Amino acid sequence: AETKKIAVIAGDGIGPEVVAEAEKIIKRTEEVFGLSFTTEHALFGGIAIDEKGTPLPEETLSVCKSADAVLLGAVGGPKWDNNSKELRPETGLLGIRKELGLFSNLRPAVIFDCLKDASTLKPEVLEGTDLMVVRELTGGIYFGEKFRREGAGGEEAVDTCVYNTAEVERIVHQAFEIAQKRRKKLASVDKANVLETSRLWRETVNRIAPEYPDVELEHVLVDNCAMQLLRRPSSFDVIVTENMFGDILSDEAAMLTGSIGMLASASMGEGAFGLYEPVHGSAPDIAGQGLANPIATILSVALMYRLTFGYEDAADAIERAVAEVLDAGHRTADIAVDKSKALSTTEMGDLIAAAI
Amino acid sequence: AETKKIAVIAGDGIGPEVVAEAEKIIKRTEEVFGLSFTTEHALFGGIAIDEKGTPLPEETLSVCKSADAVLLGAVGGPKWDNNSKELRPETGLLGIRKELGLFSNLRPAVIFDCLKDASTLKPEVLEGTDLMVVRELTGGIYFGEKFRREGAGGEEAVDTCVYNTAEVERIVHQAFEIAQKRRKKLASVDKANVLETSRLWRETVNRIAPEYPDVELEHVLVDNCAMQLLRRPSSFDVIVTENMFGDILSDEAAMLTGSIGMLASASMGEGAFGLYEPVHGSAPDIAGQGLANPIATILSVALMYRLTFGYEDAADAIERAVAEVLDAGHRTADIAVDKSKALSTTEMGDLIAAAI
Ligand SMILES: CC(C)[C@H](C(=O)O)[C@@H](O)C(=O)O
Ligand SMILES: CC(C)[C@H](C(=O)O)[C@@H](O)C(=O)O
Repeated sequence: AETKKIAVIAGDGIGPEVVAEAEKIIKRTEEVFGLSFTTEHALFGGIAIDEKGTPLPEETLSVCKSADAVLLGAVGGPKWDNNSKELRPETGLLGIRKELGLFSNLRPAVIFDCLKDASTLKPEVLEGTDLMVVRELTGGIYFGEKFRREGAGGEEAVDTCVYNTAEVERIVHQAFEIAQKRRKKLASVDKANVLETSRLWRETVNRIAPEYPDVELEHVLVDNCAMQLLRRPSSFDVIVTENMFGDILSDEAAMLTGSIGMLASASMGEGAFGLYEPVHGSAPDIAGQGLANPIATILSVALMYRLTFGYEDAADAIERAVAEVLDAGHRTADIAVDKSKALSTTEMGDLIAAAI
Repeated sequence: AETKKIAVIAGDGIGPEVVAEAEKIIKRTEEVFGLSFTTEHALFGGIAIDEKGTPLPEETLSVCKSADAVLLGAVGGPKWDNNSKELRPETGLLGIRKELGLFSNLRPAVIFDCLKDASTLKPEVLEGTDLMVVRELTGGIYFGEKFRREGAGGEEAVDTCVYNTAEVERIVHQAFEIAQKRRKKLASVDKANVLETSRLWRETVNRIAPEYPDVELEHVLVDNCAMQLLRRPSSFDVIVTENMFGDILSDEAAMLTGSIGMLASASMGEGAFGLYEPVHGSAPDIAGQGLANPIATILSVALMYRLTFGYEDAADAIERAVAEVLDAGHRTADIAVDKSKALSTTEMGDLIAAAI
């Protein structure tokens, strides 16, 4: 196959450890499936602040732009939490999304059979849950004007939430298309009874809906959605929503699966380019100890193969290998019932690589 | 006792039915505890749109302003969902909060022993859950400027989220005080890694915190809070947050108790004046059939007695009566295992009144 380029951003905390295992898997699939990749590492987040004085160095951005896809470990940690805004890892994250035009964040929330009991929800409620949150990622209150001013009640802070029709259209089209390839149900989440941006959102969804007559559409208010995710998680297929609501609801959805150490995510732009990362964070408390679960990052590689490269066979093989290793009872500490038998990060990576 | 005045707003859907039972309880406590109330009914929400052409008639506002407390059933329904903004029940709700200065929304989420199994969460996770969401109710993105404009990407919608120091201070003080009377733990929820209003929020909380050295404070990001509510609900005591986040998180918290038909809420202003209402909605699908569960509204009366009037004994008696009736196995349809044995709304109200 043609050589593809992957920008690799290990990041902070457990990032380097889980990314190393994902790279092992990439190598293995090169051998088994005759794929060919070059990888280029770049600094990002806390480590970039420490070494380059900015969370998103220009160089990192150009490495990403010259690549076909980006693999990201995790960023952030208490070390940088009290920094000024420009020197915080999150600022890099928002910057990279904007600069790379990654307007669509896909967060699948699925139940792993072997982890059914890890959820705080009853197994019979979770049964069959397999949903995907499609979160708008470069608009809304995250990117609108923010400032302070003096007002009658003392200092005043302002955030602005802005959406235009084009921004809503592109993410909604994508969500409908994803729904068409799944169970053909789309829940559009907004707060149209209060917000003007939500009313624009809902109008736009309703205008687009007739183009996808095979997809069943429901509008759900965000507060109600937070409830329904708990009450009937398995009834959702695709959920599309704006940036801030998506941040909250995708985390709720991920947690209710009980499989948060196992969930992959993708951030996509116009074409096939995408940034792939585990849903979990940088877990600074266990960093450097070989305790981290690399599965979410490994599954992010599978997602990358599928969405950016169209390497379906290799993606299937990775996912099958993960399932096989789990079915055989292998666990890292975070998902082990008997922690004394837990595998290290590299042991888990080796087993999955061998199973491909 | 001195005669107190309660403004009674039955509202839409099941509102009139549940409010009628709450009034039965008020009467009963007048007899048993020698209390004295006058009640004045007022139109609000959908029914006010139908009869007066506006969801919040001037007259209703003055009835409320002349009262010591307001008891509200529920408002809204599909009939008015497609109305223009000025003719929607929610607009009345936002209006009454603003006009009456109800800046603090208290939503206790507790587990009823007899309903432990009604939750989709595992009973062992829920065990001991007893939390209170203190939601700011008259600021933030709900009340900031909203408009449309033409932009580069077509029509553009804008919502503005504004908080000033004074607004944050008053709600945070209230939350600390509530925490002092409970288990002395406060979780302040924000999105300080992204929003300027959240950064003002967090600075203000940190400035106030030293005045309450006996309260243990944690800052939780809103996305993380949506997860932690699922993972460790019983570890929360008081959660304080801004309007939009509070809308989402209080609904999530209510749903995870499995007791949403049973939860009361209060909206408070500067003094003892408050508006009390069940957490559940107007349930138009079962309206007028005598199926509604009046317990949340009855418990709202108990909350009113406690917070507005300081009638602790009567409040205790109402809560004890509810517990007794439930313990004896009586259920309305929403919480009955055997629906064929379910009580009607009035039967439930009668039993609770008799138990006082
Ligand atoms: C770190 C933070 C800025 C970020 C977000 O809110 O988008 C994170 O929570 C996420 O969901 O990727
Ligand atoms: C009806 C709606 C405007 C309202 C809100 O968002 O505040 C409701 O959801 C609530 O929580 O009381």
